[in-house]
Amino acid sequence: MRPQIALFGDSITEQSFRSGGWGAALADTYTRKADIVNRGYSGYNTRWALFLLHQLFPFDSTKPPVAATIFFGANDAALLGRTSERQHVPIEEYKENLRKVVHHLKECSPTMLVVLITPPPVDEVGRRDYAHRSVYGEKAMELPERTNEVTGLYAKQCVELAKEMGLCSIDLWSKMQETGGWQKKFLSDGLHLTPEGNAVVHEEVVKVFNQLWLSAAEMPDDFPSHSEIDGKNPEKAFQQLCI
Amino acid sequence: MRPQIALFGDSITEQSFRSGGWGAALADTYTRKADIVNRGYSGYNTRWALFLLHQLFPFDSTKPPVAATIFFGANDAALLGRTSERQHVPIEEYKENLRKVVHHLKECSPTMLVVLITPPPVDEVGRRDYAHRSVYGEKAMELPERTNEVTGLYAKQCVELAKEMGLCSIDLWSKMQETGGWQKKFLSDGLHLTPEGNAVVHEEVVKVFNQLWLSAAEMPDDFPSHSEIDGKNPEKAFQQLCI
Repeated sequence: MRPQIALFGDSITEQSFRSGGWGAALADTYTRKADIVNRGYSGYNTRWALFLLHQLFPFDSTKPPVAATIFFGANDAALLGRTSERQHVPIEEYKENLRKVVHHLKECSPTMLVVLITPPPVDEVGRRDYAHRSVYGEKAMELPERTNEVTGLYAKQCVELAKEMGLCSIDLWSKMQETGGWQKKFLSDGLHLTPEGNAVVHEEVVKVFNQLWLSAAEMPDDFPSHSEIDGKNPEKAFQQLCI
Repeated sequence: MRPQIALFGDSITEQSFRSGGWGAALADTYTRKADIVNRGYSGYNTRWALFLLHQLFPFDSTKPPVAATIFFGANDAALLGRTSERQHVPIEEYKENLRKVVHHLKECSPTMLVVLITPPPVDEVGRRDYAHRSVYGEKAMELPERTNEVTGLYAKQCVELAKEMGLCSIDLWSKMQETGGWQKKFLSDGLHLTPEGNAVVHEEVVKVFNQLWLSAAEMPDDFPSHSEIDGKNPEKAFQQLCI
């Protein structure tokens, strides 16, 4: 009955229901209008994401999502020859993988509203501090496993692809860097989002969904507001649903 | 593929995906294990909730929720002759309505784990302050529209019913009052929950689900962890899913 909006991505999506998270905020925005389902897979790149498509979005689904965000790239952009190279996907393949994801979703449902989100910028200093602090300790690598510059190239491909396919995109990489102090304001460890960073994603996604006529304000609540229910004759409010 | 847990209730459920909310926290606890769907209806009592059952939980669903929380009573316990009397439901009817909800869910799926949650306690002072502040202003009623004592009677019936039906329940009314200063610590307007109050609900729901063998820690992730994926041979990790 209630339409579904799927959030497909990596850890930045998986963690989006933590306190202050953009997924939870979206679920609140769409309360009684749509269900927000979290399809975030920590550490995944687009190459691995392809393996999930048929199970997450089966072609024979009777009720595919009405909209989906696709939010990969932070792991694809990990550098070769560094500690996260296992996650690296070459930039051309990243773009083609994203295209395959979009094609799959559109085959699932031609009317599905698909929004591409670029990876956020990378704060290399924050990333190194995090590596020292919690992952490798004394052995923390001196060379960053991701750079902002390289991630920016992936972001650009993501935006390009959206244009080619006539889709909306959110250039988070650029958007966040418009704000001074974005490194600490929006990123908790140089890569993942602070509550303020989550708020940016939430705001941008809502903005795009509004443009796409999937505005929460204009969608009906799934049942009458309690203020419309006649205490003495509640049946009336619910009968109207069937007209 | 991923099991669903439904949260059925009034505004305390509807608002549970706001920042710090117990529904969002639950969604985070069950990340990659189960989808948490919000079926909260602000202002609703159990009498009105009955009208929703067949649409929210149709008998012919091929994939009913594996578990549900039923969290009503805060509105049923509104007093007759006061400003919220429209929402009032007599206590015997409250209990019978809850019983009907449980019967419906069990008919939907005999294996569904159903957990009853009592309304939280009421802080009459906080409630009056709120009425003065934001709803009625100068005309704020001097007599409370809900009392903690009466809500406690409803909570007791909820716990009783759970015992009669062999279900787990969370006596939130009693639990919260074990903590000194619960009035301001757990309630934002004498009725709805602060982030600390939300944390209590989250903790208690997780505790009960763990007892019912629906422990997130013991449920499998819906796909392999990225650390189990061989960068050179990713197919392997995903083929194992089909064995």
